[in-house]
Amino acid sequence: MRYELYYWPGIQGRGEFVRLALEEAGADYADVTRGERGMAAMMKMMEARSGTPPFAPPFLKAEKLLIGQTANILLYLGSRHGLAPKAEAGKLWIHQLQLTVTDLVLEIHDTHHPLGPSLYYEDQRGPAKKRSEEFWKERLPKYLGYFEGILKSSSGAWLTGRRLTYADLSLFQIVEGLRYAFPKRMKAFERGIPGLVGLHDRVAARPNIKAYLASDRRFAFNEDGIFRRYKALDV
Amino acid sequence: MRYELYYWPGIQGRGEFVRLALEEAGADYADVTRGERGMAAMMKMMEARSGTPPFAPPFLKAEKLLIGQTANILLYLGSRHGLAPKAEAGKLWIHQLQLTVTDLVLEIHDTHHPLGPSLYYEDQRGPAKKRSEEFWKERLPKYLGYFEGILKSSSGAWLTGRRLTYADLSLFQIVEGLRYAFPKRMKAFERGIPGLVGLHDRVAARPNIKAYLASDRRFAFNEDGIFRRYKALDV
Repeated sequence: MRYELYYWPGIQGRGEFVRLALEEAGADYADVTRGERGMAAMMKMMEARSGTPPFAPPFLKAEKLLIGQTANILLYLGSRHGLAPKAEAGKLWIHQLQLTVTDLVLEIHDTHHPLGPSLYYEDQRGPAKKRSEEFWKERLPKYLGYFEGILKSSSGAWLTGRRLTYADLSLFQIVEGLRYAFPKRMKAFERGIPGLVGLHDRVAARPNIKAYLASDRRFAFNEDGIFRRYKALDV
Repeated sequence: MRYELYYWPGIQGRGEFVRLALEEAGADYADVTRGERGMAAMMKMMEARSGTPPFAPPFLKAEKLLIGQTANILLYLGSRHGLAPKAEAGKLWIHQLQLTVTDLVLEIHDTHHPLGPSLYYEDQRGPAKKRSEEFWKERLPKYLGYFEGILKSSSGAWLTGRRLTYADLSLFQIVEGLRYAFPKRMKAFERGIPGLVGLHDRVAARPNIKAYLASDRRFAFNEDGIFRRYKALDV
């Protein structure tokens, strides 16, 4: 089966958490909006009046299934490709961690868009600066401290022990993205999260991920995605 | 089995989406922080260094399982209590809708807290006003228009047909909360969402929910929860 991934063209964004899982699994997939009529196809599916229309990208077509919401897609892929425990308890635990990543991703997005996603960054520079301050002072230490603690108490190299899960892949992306968006702040901050830095490096070194990151399937970070480099916010 | 629900005391908040599911199911549960040492017990579980510590309330103890993240708890309860389809496709679809409710809940919260959850509303009145404007103009119509469309194409009284799911219960709470927080705006807005208003009324009339809403187990809305009534934002 060939998966079809639908996501906004030209950015990593939330689609990247799905791409990393597909790539690690060595799954066959089309990144649909890279194709000529991909964007039109995506919009058509979002406007469908029946079936299971998604509220927003990313969404994944897997044979007859059309699955929306990043964490929901990962819940599905995790079971199919050995990227999550098989038992219910472990499955719920990894999903819980992923939903906490989801919350963090939104807070990262809100550092540059505190007044909402419909306005431009340029129209909310002041509030963005305030929100970024609060994010780095209060919120990020809380989130990454939480994940660091879980890694510390793990019996293996990954969040839940000796088997990599999709949540590990997502945390790689968090570290990678924060390094891009806030190089100055992140450099100082990383000293306090050796576990996450180690996890990041182990993910980056996995053969499938390494090949993916070096390929042109991986978009470069840019100022249209979740992680945006604005000098005013990285002080 | 008696469930234990852990959530911040005195508010509906995100815990309410779980309470509604437990009440509809007629499940036996303790709302732990109503008890004398409940708050201390909750904090202790959040500070645990092993097991599956939650990042934030609500979380649910179900025998040996400790489950965090509202949508994840509902995923679990849905399967146990017939509040979600049994087949994988239906299960994923309801979870996808619930995760979209999760996104909406956060945007509702951000109408009064655009600069982040660590500052008081009083310290972000200006940005809150701007964000509320944008929310009512752009975001809420998009979200509720989406759910209204799904209801319209449903073959039954509920989102997915003739069986009530936890996502229906959550949409009841959305309508109820918006009516509390933004009475003026909501009154005008409701004309455009007859499907959701009907769903709200049908949920409110269900015997278990009706009994719950009339009981003292249901907290009143107040200005510490997700839905807050601030006159300056309801113009």
